[in-house]
Order: sequence, then C-alpha cells, then structure tokens
Amino acid sequence: MPAQTMEELVSLCKRRGFIFQGSEIYGGLQGTYDYGPLGVELKKNLKEAWWKANIYERDDMEGLDASVLMHRMVLRHSGHESTFSDPMVDHKGSNKRYRLDHLLKDQTPEVRLKVAQSMGLEQGDDLTELVAALMKDGEKAALALSSAGVLEPEGSTGSNWTAPRPFNMMFRTTVGPVADDESYAYLRPETAQGIFVNFKNVVDSTSRRLPFGIAQIGKAFRNEITPRNFIFRVREFEQMEIEFFVKPGEDEVWHEKWLEARLKWWDSVGIPRHQIEILDVPKADLAHYSKRTYDLMYNYPSLGFEEIEGIANRTDFDLGSHTRSQADMNLSATVLPNEDSTQKLTILDGESNKHIVPYVIEPSAGVDRAVLAVLSEAFTKETLENGNERIVLKLRPHLAPIKVAVIPLARNKPELVETARKIKQDLQKLAWGRILLEDSGNVGKAYRRHDEVGTPYCVTVDYDTLGRGEDTALEDTVTVRDRDTLLQDRVAISDLESYLRSRLFG
Amino acid sequence: MPAQTMEELVSLCKRRGFIFQGSEIYGGLQGTYDYGPLGVELKKNLKEAWWKANIYERDDMEGLDASVLMHRMVLRHSGHESTFSDPMVDHKGSNKRYRLDHLLKDQTPEVRLKVAQSMGLEQGDDLTELVAALMKDGEKAALALSSAGVLEPEGSTGSNWTAPRPFNMMFRTTVGPVADDESYAYLRPETAQGIFVNFKNVVDSTSRRLPFGIAQIGKAFRNEITPRNFIFRVREFEQMEIEFFVKPGEDEVWHEKWLEARLKWWDSVGIPRHQIEILDVPKADLAHYSKRTYDLMYNYPSLGFEEIEGIANRTDFDLGSHTRSQADMNLSATVLPNEDSTQKLTILDGESNKHIVPYVIEPSAGVDRAVLAVLSEAFTKETLENGNERIVLKLRPHLAPIKVAVIPLARNKPELVETARKIKQDLQKLAWGRILLEDSGNVGKAYRRHDEVGTPYCVTVDYDTLGRGEDTALEDTVTVRDRDTLLQDRVAISDLESYLRSRLFG
Repeated sequence: MPAQTMEELVSLCKRRGFIFQGSEIYGGLQGTYDYGPLGVELKKNLKEAWWKANIYERDDMEGLDASVLMHRMVLRHSGHESTFSDPMVDHKGSNKRYRLDHLLKDQTPEVRLKVAQSMGLEQGDDLTELVAALMKDGEKAALALSSAGVLEPEGSTGSNWTAPRPFNMMFRTTVGPVADDESYAYLRPETAQGIFVNFKNVVDSTSRRLPFGIAQIGKAFRNEITPRNFIFRVREFEQMEIEFFVKPGEDEVWHEKWLEARLKWWDSVGIPRHQIEILDVPKADLAHYSKRTYDLMYNYPSLGFEEIEGIANRTDFDLGSHTRSQADMNLSATVLPNEDSTQKLTILDGESNKHIVPYVIEPSAGVDRAVLAVLSEAFTKETLENGNERIVLKLRPHLAPIKVAVIPLARNKPELVETARKIKQDLQKLAWGRILLEDSGNVGKAYRRHDEVGTPYCVTVDYDTLGRGEDTALEDTVTVRDRDTLLQDRVAISDLESYLRSRLFG
Repeated sequence: MPAQTMEELVSLCKRRGFIFQGSEIYGGLQGTYDYGPLGVELKKNLKEAWWKANIYERDDMEGLDASVLMHRMVLRHSGHESTFSDPMVDHKGSNKRYRLDHLLKDQTPEVRLKVAQSMGLEQGDDLTELVAALMKDGEKAALALSSAGVLEPEGSTGSNWTAPRPFNMMFRTTVGPVADDESYAYLRPETAQGIFVNFKNVVDSTSRRLPFGIAQIGKAFRNEITPRNFIFRVREFEQMEIEFFVKPGEDEVWHEKWLEARLKWWDSVGIPRHQIEILDVPKADLAHYSKRTYDLMYNYPSLGFEEIEGIANRTDFDLGSHTRSQADMNLSATVLPNEDSTQKLTILDGESNKHIVPYVIEPSAGVDRAVLAVLSEAFTKETLENGNERIVLKLRPHLAPIKVAVIPLARNKPELVETARKIKQDLQKLAWGRILLEDSGNVGKAYRRHDEVGTPYCVTVDYDTLGRGEDTALEDTVTVRDRDTLLQDRVAISDLESYLRSRLFG
C-alpha cells in the first residue's frame, strides 16, 4: 500500500537523506530542493532507466543535452514570452501575491459561486472557466473577488483584491558585462526548446529520416508564484522529454503508440496502471500548440490525481515557429512570423522527395514528480510477527539507491571488517550501482535502516564466515537477508554474485 | 598523437554531433554549448566514470545533487558577493568591455612593457602583478593603458580606455512574483557551496565521521566577460567537485593523497601523466580561502597548459563561514561574521569528544574541460597502408559514445537487417551503454564514420551470416572490426558477447 500522506514521505526523505530544502540553513529558498546521498542515487537510477528505455533500447532515437541559458529569440518564437504566464492577483492589505486559480481552489464552494455569479456564470466549480472569465475583465474581477469575500489562505484581514493579471513565469538574467535591453537571456522553462532549435544539427550529424525522436533530460526553471507540495510544484526541476518527429498524417497513430509505451515504462518503475488516470485534455483546455494531449495523472498522497507526464501532439507548431520565413511552408499551426531564425527546420521526405515540416509527438515527464511517485508507491508500513511496525521502501531493485549493504557483525573488528570490505569491493566491480560497507556495529539497526531506504539485500559477515563459529562448515559463507520477505539465507561467498544477480536483475 | 589545433576538434564536434553552439539558429548565445547525440554519451560516460571512482569504489564518500538557484546569503557568506569578480575595462570609442588580463595578453610585449612602466613596474610579463597594479589606481591605469597604445583585439580605432574596475561574475535573477531588494537569488557559480550548506544534513542522515567526503556533479554559471576557446571558457558549464572533510592537522597529508588519486583517475580516462603539469600555486596567487592549491594543467591544443582541475586546501574557511556566531569556534580562517545562518557546521570528534570545524580538501574538475581534453588526447590522424588518411578517436572503451555498431551489409534487405537488429538487441541487454544499429547500406563509409566517433568495434552481418555465402561453415558468424588495429575477425554470434566483453572491459 502506497504512502497515505505527503508528510510521512517528507519526513522519511529528510531523515534518511533523500531530499532536503534548498539553502535550508539560511531559512530555505522557496521552491528549491537538494537531493541528498540517497536521493541522488534514486534520481540517477530513474533517469538511467528512462534513458535506456527511450534511447538505447530503441532504434529511432538520439540523445541531446542543451544549455539552460537560451537566447531570448528562442523563447519569443516558441510563444513563451507572450503566453507562458499564470494569472496573479494581489491582496491590497498584505501586498502578497497569489496565483488566482490556487487562491480560488482554497475558497469555500459558496464563495466561489458568488465570484462566478458576479462574473455572469452559473456555477463556480469549473476553475478553468472561472479564471478565464476573471482574466477577461480585470476591474469587474477585482470587485467580484472582493465582494464575494475571498480571503487569503493564511488569515487575511479582509477581502480587498487588485485586478488579476498575467505573470510571466520565465526567469531572466543579464548575460555579458553590459545590462541593456538586448543583453538578457532566459533560463529555459522546458527542455523541449533546446531540442527544436537543434533539430537541423541532429539531422545533419546523424542522417536520420522520419520517424525519429530526440530525447533529453535536464533542468528547467519556472518562477512559480506559489510553489507547494514538496517537490511536486517547484521553481527548479528536471524534465525527461522526448520530441518525436513524424510525417503529418502519421501523428495520431504515433500519439497512441507513445501513450502505450509510456504507460508500460511507468509500470516498469513500479507505478502500476491502476494508479494512473489518463486525462484526454478537453479542447478548451489545450495549450495553443496542441492538437490533442493526454495527461497521465498519478494518485499522489494528500494531493490526489495530478499530472506526472503530458503526451502532446504539437503538430508542426514548434519546427514551424523556429523556421525563417514560413510563408511557403504550408504550416497547419498558427505561428509568429520569424525573420530572426537563420534556418528552415525541414527534412527531406524520401517518398515525395519534398522538404516537409514534421509533426511532433511530445511525451514530457517530470523527474522530480517521478521520484515522488516512485517513493510513494514503494512506501510501505508493515506490522511484523512480533508486533513491531516497520517502514520499508519496496523499490524495484534497479531503482534502489543502494543495491547491497555489506555488514560486519561487530564494529572495529579488523578481521570481520576486512572480509566485509573485500566482499563489497568484489560486488562493486560488477557495476550494479552503489554497494555500501555498513560498519555501524549493530546489525538489527542496520537492517531497519536499510528497509527504510529500500536496500534489497543485506549481507552480514560474522565469526562463522571466518571459520571461528561452532559449525566450521559455515566458513566462507555469509547471511543474506531479503528486504521484502525478511528471509535469511546462508550463502557461500563464491556463490554470492550469482545468488544476488538472479534476484536483483533476474 | 593528440589533436594539433582546436579548429580540427571543433570541426569534428560539429560534423559528427558531439557539440553545437547554443541557440545557434538565432545567431548563438555566446558562452553556451549544446551536447549532441554523441557528445551527450561521451559526457555521460565521463561523469559516470568519475562517480564510480569517487563514490562507489570508495568507502568514505557520499553523493549530493543540490539546486542551481541559491539563497543570496549563501553567496554572501561564501565571499562570492564581495570577491568573485574579474577586472574589466571599457574602450571609450566602441563602448565594448574587455577582461583586463585577457586584453593585456593579446597585446605585444612592447605595449605591455609600456603599461607596466607607467605603473612603476620594471617588466610587463607577469600578468598577475600587472593587473594588480592597474586595479589599485584606476585613474592612473586608464592613462597607462591609453598612452601605451593598448588596442582592441578586433581593430580598435584608437587607444582610449576607462579606469578598470571589478565585475562580479554571478548571474542573478528575481525569484517570486515581487521584484524587490530581497527577492533575488544567484545561479550558483560553483557546485561547492551546495555541499557546504548541506554538511549537517548529510552528517545527520548518514552518521558519517571524519574523514569523509561529499561529491557532486552539476551545472554552474559564470558571467564571463569574454567567453572563448570553444568549451574551455564558457558561461554555463558542469563541475565534478569533491569536498573532503578532515581533522585539522591531517589536511596536508590528505591534500597529497587527493593529488595522487586525481592524477591516477585522469590517466584512467586517457589523459597520461606527461600531458599534465602540476602547478603549486604561488602564495601570492592563492584564492582568499586557500592555504595551498595544486592546479592540474592539461596541454590543450592551441591553448597550451591550462587548468583542468584545481585541488585546494580550503582550511576551515567554508564550514566556518556558513556557521552562525563563530566567536567560540577558534577558526583559523578569516570569515565574515554570520548571524544569517541557523546552524553550526561542526562534527563530533570521537577522540577528543569535542565538536570541531573540519578542514576541507577540494578536488574540483570541469566536466566540459575534461570532455575537451579527452577528445583531444583521443584525436588521431593516421595514414593507412593504401595511402589514405583517416581520423580516428582512440577513446577508452568505457568512454566511447557508441560501444558497438551493428551493420547489415546492405540496406533494406529484411533478412540482413533483422539479424543485425537481433544482435543489437542482445548486446543492448548487457547494459554496456549505447549499441547502434547502423542501417546505412555502405559498410566502408560506416567504418570511417565510426572511426571518427570512436566506436571500438563494428559488427557486420552479411550473406555468409545467413548461410547463403559460398562457405556455409560461416553461417551464424559475423565480421568484427577493431577500430585501432583495423583487423577483422570472423566470430560466431554465440561467442560475440565474450569476445567483445574481454576486449571492451577486459
């Protein structure tokens, strides 16, 4: 059974070194998180699983790693300068700013209904509709919010609101020594644009033909007005994005194929199909570039179903937008005129022998949201036979931060520690990931700690191993404890590799 | 023999998809580069080799992955707000800005001597000394530069310079919806600070005792006035940093140990000892936090010996700087008073049973500079027996972007392609990295292309493989070509795994 509340996950993450608040010792920088010794391994393993499935195991994909800092023209022509914003509203008393939809969500249904009625709507439960109405007429909206009694979540001294307005979520910074109107750049708000602007570079250096994709994992930055819910909504995050380029007309078939492929992958990292709802995003809610989008909604603890991945049919919007002088391109998408780009982002179609602008299918997942979902699914509270309770992270072995812990029975006993170290080193050479020498001297506590961090197997070296126990037949054997079954096997050191290999990766 | 010029490396990188200019189709964003399909694999393999050597294969290290956006107080107390700057000077005619030391380096020795003499120095070859003198008296410096005839590198219309002044290299951006004096953060200029501010979190969650280290790989950002030399000096880059915490008094021994360990690692990725010079940085040139620093200088093509890694003894400066109220700490370093931090970054010393502030040894390497050095060392031009020239990247197999290319003899022959695909899939399962199905139909060209990108082995599937050649004994065998020796072996498909494994990782 997955985690029941976000709090129990946050607590485990801090206690065991998965995830800490960013800049914590200075009071924290809101919306940033740091991955600790175990978090960095879990995240690394998850990204590697994605990279393997989407690049190594396919024959139609290339990888990429583009810069975070991007030319402002990239983000102008992508549409982000004009449309990448959230609705924002200020409370006149506290001077605090809120994201309008989040603020409305936190009100009672009665208050929402009043706001809606003031704006000429019949009901206030459709937040998308309500926000759209409020953004259309700012002055009327300010009155509607204030007269309906909308309050700040943390104790407002009254309901007195400004007109809501859009707030662009891109971070910008000055690049180069002169701060003038032209010398700024954006921190990319999504990794996708780095793929689109490199489309021609990749085609030229790999000779790819359609259909093929480009995949990227990397940081993206969004100046969220109200970051919240641990690592779910943050200002600095990682994405795993695929832009898959297909012939126009083949886009709908590929959209379905990618939906299936992605659901299969989520299952392979421990997120079962029944914990995901597929939202076929209604036409009215689609982003301006999208013909159709499937949102995969995972059932997060305390939050309910929220987006973990979006799979969009972006048509020819992106490559069209970044193409110079699109007049003769016959684009289906509506794009800004572009005389800033130096390239036409087309590809030769072998059949028609014409240069065409491909359609794009984009499966775009959040790494941090994936980490949170994987942790949540793996989180298990069990009552043992002796009545004690244990917390165990039932992570898939390929995701576990530590694959095997090797534990000498007693601390500071050189013969035990050296044998354990030798076993650790031999297992380490197999390149399975992190193998830990756990020299804390308390086997019971070590087991409990490794349950909590999801280590699949603990190997204990004792005096029997050294041939100094009662049963000398146990010389050169060790105890192997299984995280999930709690069963312990006595295994010859010489058999340890094959014993563990079949169980970890079998 | 390594690459002779930077140009031949840049050209290969672009042509074969290793590295492209960032935001290239919009004229480029200076100082940013994007890693293409092969560059991303090379960089990934190099980072993984570092992670394995420094975390998995040691018993005294933990990993971390902290945020890029950092609280401004972190960078204030680290000393970056006040001292992380380069000397900058403006040309009054063009209004262009230059980094003073770079500008002086580009002048003739005669011009430099004139500048030096105007500042009361006897010679102008010691740039550190010359820059220091110029920064001390700005007005005198402006005159000295202008009267000595210092020119802009790209055709100045005269020598007319402003007083030089320091330029802080940190990127800053507004975080949150309100842009006021308190709501900005910095993009970290080094990954190190993310480690220091998490020191207590890591100790608390892992129960580590001294000596132990924390390692991190991640992006860092510096607003270089004049980015140059391809990926050598850029505004966005990656670092591989270790902060190794030791007892005061044991720092000098550990400094030497890390120097040895790092040289050994560079050798393991193909950078031999004789291509690195160790610079024992003179006292006068040491950073303010350093007691002693070794700079490892690699012999870059076109640049000569330049820093690829710095190994610094940072004393108790860092943990001391980020500690609240340091009065009773007996720090050896001089730090800013700190009432902003909430923590004391100390650790219990088992022997004395006292809380102490550890010393720090920091081996800090640049990922991009490492990629450039590895490419340069591997780059080889050879004249073949038939008189033709070939370019071959003699990368160590564990770093090669593609481990094995599987090539059907003819394109679009389903029986050949399917057998090749099957072989590719079986090799892929071994998790060696990227295995490529190369269905271009021209084996000779494929060999040449894979020489240029460093693929150690090409496996060719022909009609003999299918049992349709003259010698039916060749059924189920393939040709394996060695990148370096050019020798070709006929190998049974069933033996392929062990044949390749021993040669790739033997």
